[in-house]
Amino acid sequence: MEITKQLKFNKDGLIPVVVQDWKDNVVLMVAYMNAEAFEKTLKTKKATFWSRSRQKFWIKGEQSGNIQKVKEVYYDCDADCILLKVHQVGDSACHTGYRSCFYRKLSFTGNTRITGKKIFDPKKVYGK
Amino acid sequence: MEITKQLKFNKDGLIPVVVQDWKDNVVLMVAYMNAEAFEKTLKTKKATFWSRSRQKFWIKGEQSGNIQKVKEVYYDCDADCILLKVHQVGDSACHTGYRSCFYRKLSFTGNTRITGKKIFDPKKVYGK
Repeated sequence: MEITKQLKFNKDGLIPVVVQDWKDNVVLMVAYMNAEAFEKTLKTKKATFWSRSRQKFWIKGEQSGNIQKVKEVYYDCDADCILLKVHQVGDSACHTGYRSCFYRKLSFTGNTRITGKKIFDPKKVYGK
Repeated sequence: MEITKQLKFNKDGLIPVVVQDWKDNVVLMVAYMNAEAFEKTLKTKKATFWSRSRQKFWIKGEQSGNIQKVKEVYYDCDADCILLKVHQVGDSACHTGYRSCFYRKLSFTGNTRITGKKIFDPKKVYGK
């Protein structure tokens, strides 16, 4: 697609993607797409990423069932970041079972506190 | 700080940072911090990044006056991304004058439409 050529993928061929819940704008996660994952996402309206750890396409929720139905797509001023607003099936985006991957809050002195809401038990969803 | 050691900076020593308006959770921008920018941000409560284009510290708003007063800090499950909730002074985060850097919406067929709100004229703020 023409727009894909305008996006600035990094030297690994990836672009960061912020995923927001379209209901309340909570940031659910940040992941990466390559050009093909970006086009698959537009075509299928299901958030599809490139897994850096597994080095393969990753349809978010393919294992857990918690897919992300894409409602809106934006890109930023430098064309080097994408923002998706999604309907999060199962209300949880994080593999840890929390709603958002950003379930840990930091104080200004660097202390961590869990503030997120746990939606599911990952052992039951992914096995051991 | 201890927490800085737990964060996973990439091979360039950077970590992506999503910046949200704490009032309504609008995503204003995505930028990058190195370890020192991260610690400066916690210490000063002013969002401070590492500018990849200029290769120097960048206190957001130092030129325009549109600084970001940090209200809350989160980090994600993989400890490789940070989320800031900020009070955006001047109501605009983007150097283009739009409130958010994500002022362009994409249709599923790849067409771009400007949906963001322009807050200021960049020529008046930054000069030519």
